[in-house]
Formats: sequence, structure tokens, C-alpha cells
Amino acid sequence: MVKPVLLTSVTLALLAVSQPALADALIDNVDGMTLDADGKVVRFTGILMTPDGKVVKLLAAKDKRPDRLDWRADMKGRVLLPGFVDAHGHVMELGFSAVLLDLSTARTLDEAKARIAAYAAANPDRKWILGGGWNQERWGLGRFPTAADLDSVVSDRPVFLSRIDGHAAWANSAAIRAAGVTAASVSPAGGRIEKGAGGTPAGVFVDAAQDLVRKAVPQPLPKDRDTAVLSAQATLLSMGVTAAADMGTSVDDWLSYRRVADRGALRVRIISYGAGIDDTVRIGGTGPSPWLYADRLRLAGVKLYGDGALGSRGAWLKAPYADAPGQSGLGFMTDTVIRNLMSRAAMDNYQVAVHAIGDRANAQVLDAIEELSATYKGDRRWRIEHAQVIDPTDLKRFAAHGTIASMQPTHQTSDRTMAEARLGAARLAGAYAWRTMLANGVPLAFGSDFPVERPDPFAGWAAAFTRQDADGQPSGGWRPEEAVTREQAWRAFTQGGAYAAFAEDKFGRLAPGQRADFIIVDRDPLLASPSDLRATKVQETWVGGEKVWERKGG
Amino acid sequence: MVKPVLLTSVTLALLAVSQPALADALIDNVDGMTLDADGKVVRFTGILMTPDGKVVKLLAAKDKRPDRLDWRADMKGRVLLPGFVDAHGHVMELGFSAVLLDLSTARTLDEAKARIAAYAAANPDRKWILGGGWNQERWGLGRFPTAADLDSVVSDRPVFLSRIDGHAAWANSAAIRAAGVTAASVSPAGGRIEKGAGGTPAGVFVDAAQDLVRKAVPQPLPKDRDTAVLSAQATLLSMGVTAAADMGTSVDDWLSYRRVADRGALRVRIISYGAGIDDTVRIGGTGPSPWLYADRLRLAGVKLYGDGALGSRGAWLKAPYADAPGQSGLGFMTDTVIRNLMSRAAMDNYQVAVHAIGDRANAQVLDAIEELSATYKGDRRWRIEHAQVIDPTDLKRFAAHGTIASMQPTHQTSDRTMAEARLGAARLAGAYAWRTMLANGVPLAFGSDFPVERPDPFAGWAAAFTRQDADGQPSGGWRPEEAVTREQAWRAFTQGGAYAAFAEDKFGRLAPGQRADFIIVDRDPLLASPSDLRATKVQETWVGGEKVWERKGG
Repeated sequence: MVKPVLLTSVTLALLAVSQPALADALIDNVDGMTLDADGKVVRFTGILMTPDGKVVKLLAAKDKRPDRLDWRADMKGRVLLPGFVDAHGHVMELGFSAVLLDLSTARTLDEAKARIAAYAAANPDRKWILGGGWNQERWGLGRFPTAADLDSVVSDRPVFLSRIDGHAAWANSAAIRAAGVTAASVSPAGGRIEKGAGGTPAGVFVDAAQDLVRKAVPQPLPKDRDTAVLSAQATLLSMGVTAAADMGTSVDDWLSYRRVADRGALRVRIISYGAGIDDTVRIGGTGPSPWLYADRLRLAGVKLYGDGALGSRGAWLKAPYADAPGQSGLGFMTDTVIRNLMSRAAMDNYQVAVHAIGDRANAQVLDAIEELSATYKGDRRWRIEHAQVIDPTDLKRFAAHGTIASMQPTHQTSDRTMAEARLGAARLAGAYAWRTMLANGVPLAFGSDFPVERPDPFAGWAAAFTRQDADGQPSGGWRPEEAVTREQAWRAFTQGGAYAAFAEDKFGRLAPGQRADFIIVDRDPLLASPSDLRATKVQETWVGGEKVWERKGG
Repeated sequence: MVKPVLLTSVTLALLAVSQPALADALIDNVDGMTLDADGKVVRFTGILMTPDGKVVKLLAAKDKRPDRLDWRADMKGRVLLPGFVDAHGHVMELGFSAVLLDLSTARTLDEAKARIAAYAAANPDRKWILGGGWNQERWGLGRFPTAADLDSVVSDRPVFLSRIDGHAAWANSAAIRAAGVTAASVSPAGGRIEKGAGGTPAGVFVDAAQDLVRKAVPQPLPKDRDTAVLSAQATLLSMGVTAAADMGTSVDDWLSYRRVADRGALRVRIISYGAGIDDTVRIGGTGPSPWLYADRLRLAGVKLYGDGALGSRGAWLKAPYADAPGQSGLGFMTDTVIRNLMSRAAMDNYQVAVHAIGDRANAQVLDAIEELSATYKGDRRWRIEHAQVIDPTDLKRFAAHGTIASMQPTHQTSDRTMAEARLGAARLAGAYAWRTMLANGVPLAFGSDFPVERPDPFAGWAAAFTRQDADGQPSGGWRPEEAVTREQAWRAFTQGGAYAAFAEDKFGRLAPGQRADFIIVDRDPLLASPSDLRATKVQETWVGGEKVWERKGG
């Protein structure tokens, strides 16, 4: 019924002439640098952008600037880099961590207890004291902390605190009572209740056992979630992170991201991996979502957990822990279950990201990928998150099916002493093996695992090519043969994360057609010493050609 | 830092000249009619629209058509009306009803049993036989049907069937067993387990008691929800409904609407009222969502239930049922609870829509509105859904705080015999009192309560000014003093629904600035006899200036 009427010649002429009215914008006078698609450094002095914030062209000093522009920003010679892509973080948890009790810098149990007491006094209205960051290894405690330790400072209301790696939690007696856990309670599959005299819960709950207490914790309200998203976003942008993979998005997390985006307030790009298959399918239905809000949000796939973490001895090892001969960690899924879940996801084209820290867990995921790749062909980009401890015989298996190693350089520097104790010298050969991954042709994506580590990508970048921590320890780097180059590390923190999320055509570098996501920093990161690189200050953060964050006071 | 550069005079000239390139479109040669904002009929022969589908101007035959147009559609003199707005429906349930067992046209228990047997045979893979539409009143059964009635046709798997009004459900023994309901089970607050000999569950579960069995029914998968949304949308558009209030959107419903919309497939406009306060807040956070997808989706507020329905004697009456002297129905909330819930919603600017059928329930909601209006000022548009049986002394209270009466004309024609039996003659004075509502200055919004009734607005329109059913019964109309005029009914089915959803500036009539939502029909509804009006066929449905449905074969 609808018959398009031919455009008159007058209209056609107008259309042809009117195109230049949509003029471009210019970011000019920058000391710009990016990697190209081959990982080579490209330097430039200007970025020409479309009105909707995509790169038209990088301009060299000698290139003539267009006569007609919508607007132009003079960056006064400052250093400009592509925004960082954090390949593995937890957006909502980062936001909540800002209002929770933070024990990550406590150096002793007594210091932790003092902070817990101070926080409880400062927050009389909080019905539960929640937080985390404790690390009994750092405290040199030689044991897990106990409920009694907590009761001595807070006994009037529940206290529930996550370990630094999220793989264990510490509860006081009020929390254990509120959760109804008793001496008769048994450890669930994939978890362990630490027991004291007479089988009474000692106070620490490992991996799946945490849920026994966590289910009693009041859920955050939707408005608290929105506040947390905005807080996390501000933190990420202030550190130069313009896109992040959210590793375990719940339905309520997703609803919150959408609320923030619907109100036009989502600035950072979030690539969601649903928290398990049920939430993923509830969010995505028959497959990943489209890219939403001008590429600022997408449900890409599912996050699964293959095992726990090294610190809590939850990482699943092929041989027992060197410092706990009776334990080999916890596999969260049987071979059948992991195949079924991965298959269920792949069937609907969800990307699959599996947390695997121990060599046994990594082998299990690699086995599953090998088997599923026969059925689910094409560009699947199976992801192994952390890929921390690998049996050297398994290292080469990553490349076979294009499996992505999604790794966190700062975990290596935080964990090295603990990892040596847990694994013993012989098993370190395949641990944190970044360079070997690249040498084997494995796509490498770097992230921080925020809020487990700070999301600061400059700290991760420096760690990646030095294998040293912020104090320059150990001298010469820890197993420096697994360091990558400065450029390789930069690439894994930008293009690597984008590729790992099927976003390499959208962001991760500065080139024609890419979103203009960039940051202005106070130094040249390719020339800075490692300690200078760590001290880099982000001055401005731009996403999609729009300035979305600026350091107060310049 | 960003300094917009002044536009050059050349660019300015181009911008000025290029505006006409965004030319309008013309729907021409129509026999067009709409109501204006005052409810007066306006006739026109063309609609000039913007490229994004808003009405620029209605054109009379004598008005000159623009020279420059993007496109023009010649409607060949056919009748064009604004799309209908259904003020009260259940989108997801409408979609599911298409694949469920439908007993709404069964005239006897035996006929129902035959259909159940046939459906079970035709659907051997369905683990539960689900559906509804039964009405023991229509069957002249003089009692509720029983589990034994069902067992005689299906005993190998659970059967669970909703009553026509959704306020009761009928289960077979397998379903009762699967749900773990026994003679020892007690009726929950706000519900009733019909009991047989020795207290055994008889097979019917009224109002809140339905959940005892429903919780055992497997949940539909997300993909089934998406299919249901598309099915419901096709049904609505085929009947000329271009916008509908969804009265009880769950989190999973919302996720499905968004998936469909994200993929660009949402055509009908859905105004969501969340299913209870928890789901509303989980979806909306600190308030209603913005209008999304070019005004095709919005979370507007919350749906609450004040009581049940007349058919199942769940409607909450001030005095006992005429045909069941021991019963007065069920109030779902105490006065305190309803105030708390309404207050909780209003605090965050959620609109509140409360289901109230019986006079006691209506009085309770009116009391709550009166009290809350002192705190929550401004344009709140409290909604009472159904407002079916009102104590005449309460009728005038609607207008005091701008309360909207959201009513369903076809309920009156379907229910009249049953209503007479339930209420007795004396209580009919304030029942289905549409004209009195208008006379009192109460904003009236009409809907169908689909899928309880068919969403066909022409059936509702005809019922509204005749008080007769599709067979013309009763002669002269049932309590014809409460009929409204043809134009008043039309207005309540268009502008009324838009106003009730704070959408009167967006759709509901054809006028400059409104979305171009219209339908092409095969007759003039202002001239047709009531039976001819009921037979109206929609030929095309347009939403936002885009044709989204067309009758196959013209």
C-alpha cells in the first residue's frame, strides 16, 4: 500500500549538499600514541571524529586540518592514549566495595580487629557489618581467623567479611546464628565449613560454603545497586578504564546497568558475562544481547566457575598443595556438568568464560573445550579466566581452539609468596605464564579482577613487563622469563580485552571506525620507568568522543 | 577544555538550507476521524507526519498537500481511526494463552472434559496440562468442578487450569500430589482450598490458594516468553490495539519486553505496572523508567491486588454474597498493608493501580487514597482497576483526588447474570457504573482485561454504549442508565487509556505532536449499528507512522 514517492530533483540536490553540514570534530595538538592492529606503535597529533564519536582519521603534525568542524579541542600537547579495556572485573562489587569495610590494607589481625570495631562504631545503623579484603597470609597468622576473633570486637550484630580473593568468608557468632549454621551443618559440595572443637563452625566458610551464611545477608536495594554502578564507573574512568568485562552479572545487576543507561548516565562500556547459565538465559533469552546504548552495554555470554582460589586452597590442583598435603582444592563441577553447561551456553551462541585457577581445573576446561569444539564450530573465543596455574603439558592446548587466556598481572605480584608456598618450586613453571601464552599464539587479555585488585591499569601494565610489585620486589622480577614486553602488555590491556569480548571492531585502539575512547595522561607511558609508569595520573577520560571524567584541580 | 569552534557562515547556510531535506510523509486520501482533546469528533482526509512518525498536521480535503515529501501513501478513501489504547490487559498471559488449553468457549463440563482429553492427546510432550477459561457458572453446574472430574480424563500427569477470571484454579490429583497439598494443608491468608470429604482438597483453589499448586508448575523459559510477547503483539495489532497497559509485569516479563525491543521487534506500546512492589522496585529502582524505544515501553508504576473476583466469590463485599450468605469475599491486604504499599510506591513516584472489584475493596482503596493524598500531592492519577461494584455512597469519592476508574465494558456483558446472582438486585445500583463515573467527573479508561476477555476493542466499544452482549442481550440493555455515549466510549478506549498512563501527550488521538498510531478499518464506526461495529475488521495497523500489521488477503 505504501508507495514511496520519487524524491524531487530539488530534494536530491539538497541531500547531496547537506552532507557536509554533519561536520566532524577534532581533538588536536596531542602527543598521541596507540597500537595498530599488528601491535605496532603509531604516533599522531590529532584525532578527527564523527559527530557520534567515532574515529575518522588519526592526523600527523604535517596533515592539514579540515576547514569546517563542529568543534575542536586543543589538548596543549598532552599525552593521549586509547582507553584501557579491563578484561576481567566485577562492576557491582567494585561499587559496593566503596561503602563496605575494607581490610585489604590491614597488616595484622589486631589491626583488622581495630578497623572492624571502628567501622561498627561509625555505622551504628548497618544491620550487618559487611566487607572484606582480609588475608591471613599477609597477617602471618598461620591459621584462618575465627568467629571468636570477631566476637571480641563485634558481638551485637552479624559480621560477614570476604577474604581478599572472594573464595572464603569470615563470620562472627551472630552471623552464624542468623544463618542457622550449627555443629550439625555439613559442608556443601564445592565448599568447606571450617570446624572447631566439637565440630562447631570455626568462623571461616570456604567457596560454596560461604552461601550458607550469605543467604542470610539482607540483599542490597535496587537504589543501592544504582549508586554502586555510578561509583564503580567513576572509579574506572578516573583510572583510564573505558571498557570492562563484568564477570558474573546477575539479573539485578543487569537491571541496574539498564536503569543507569536508560537515564543516559552509563559512560563506561560494560560487557556482561551472566552469573551462571540461569541468570544468563533470564537476561539474554535465546542469545547474547545486541550492543546497546551506542556500544556501552552488551550481554556477551556466561561466566562459570571451575574452581576456587589459591589463597583459600580452593584452587583445584592435580597434586596436593605443597603446604597442605591432604588437600587438592575443590572442583566446582564434574566433567559432565561443565560440558553440559558450556554446551547449553554455546548452543545459543553465548560466549563461555570459565574461571580456572588450579592446573586440574584448567585441564578440565581445556578438555571440555576440546570436546565441545567438535560440535560448536566457528569463532567461539572460549575464555579461561585467570588461567593461573597450568601444567606445562597443558600450556600448548590453549592455542588449539583459539582459547583466550584472560589473566591479571597484579595477581602475580600479590600472590607470588603465597603461590610459592601453596605450589612448591616444581609447579611454578606453568604459573602466570604470560610470555609462554603469547609464544604459543594464545590471545592474551589482561585485567585486574577488580575489586580483588585495584582496577588501575598502569599498575597492571608495569607488573606485566617487570614481574615486580609496586615496591620493585623482587629485584630482577619473579620468574622474569614470563614477563612480556611493554608493548605486548599494553596491547593485552587494550586490544586484548576488546578481542576477548568480540569488540575489536568497536574499541581497544584508535583507528578509523573505532569508538573514540581515549585518555589524557600526565606522562609518556612508553618512556616512563616502571615506577614512573605506576605513578601515571589520568587527567581526562573520553568515551565515544565525549569527555566523561576530568581530574579535579587539573 | 573543549572549546566549540564557531560554525563558519558556510556551514550555517548549509544547515539552514538542509532542513527541508528531512521532509515529511503523507498518509493521504483517508476517511479519517479522531476525537480532539475535548472529545469532539474531527474529520480529515490526510495526515502529515514527521520522518520519525509524529503527526505534524491533519489535513482537510481542501488543504493543499506539500510539494516535497519523503513518501506518500494513498489509502483510497478508507476509514482511518486512532489506534486503541487498552487500559488494562496482561500481555504475557495473552501470549501464553495462544498455546494453552482454552476452555472459554466450553458450554458444559462434559464439553470441557472432551477438550481436555483432546488437548492432552495432542500434546503428549507437555509435562503439565495448563490453560484456563473455565466457568462453572456458564456450565450451569451449581458447584465447582472437582479433581475427580479431571482425573477421569487425565490422570497420568498434572493438570492445572485457571478459571475465566484468574481468581480460581482447578487441579487434578496428579497436580495436587506434585504440589504436596494434602488434607492437612490449610488455606493461606487471602485464599481458600475447596475441601471435600475428610478435608481432602476438592480440586479448586481460590485466589491466594492457587499459589500452593502454581509454585509446582514448571516456569516458562525465557525464549517461550519472547514467543509469547510476539504472539500477544500480533493479536493486539490485528485488533487495532496500538498501546496497552500491562497490569502486573514481572521481572522476567520486563526482561522479555526489553529483549524483543532491543532486537527492534517491539511494535505495540506497552505501559508496565510491576507485579507488586518488589518486582516494581527491582525493575525501576528509584522510580518509573523513562519512556523507552520511542515511547514503546515504560515502567509506569505498580499493580496491587485489593481483592479477588465475583465469579469465584473472591471479590470483597461489605455485606455477604446474595448466593452464599456465609461469605463476603477476601480482602488481600489489611488497611495498614495497603497504605504501606501504596505509600512505598508513591514515595518514589510510581503510579499506583489497585485491583478492586467488591464494594468493600473499593472503599478500602478509596480510604487509602484519601489518606495518602494528604502526603503525596500533585498529579498522582491513582488508578482503581475494575471498580466493578461500588457502594453508591462511595461513587462520588472517586473524583475527590483525581482517581481513575479503569473499567472493562465486556466484563459487564459477560458477568451480568452472575453479578445479579452474587449481589442481588439491591446492590446493582453502583455496579459497572460507567455513566455515573463520567457524570461525577471521574477520568474513565476502558480496557478488556485480556486475555480474560478478548482484546477486541470494537466489542468493548459496542458493549459500552448498548449494555448488550454480542447477541444483543438483554433487549434494551442491562441497566441502560449506566451506558455511555458512543463518543464517550471511544474516548475512554483511546484518550482515556493514554491519560490513565500519563501518556496523553504521546498517543491516544491524532493531533499535532502525537505519535502517528492509527488503524485502517472496513467501516465507519460512528455510523455502524452496534452489531456492525462489533464486526469491524482492522485492515492495517500503524504505530509511530510505520505499518506494523496488515490483514492477509486484504
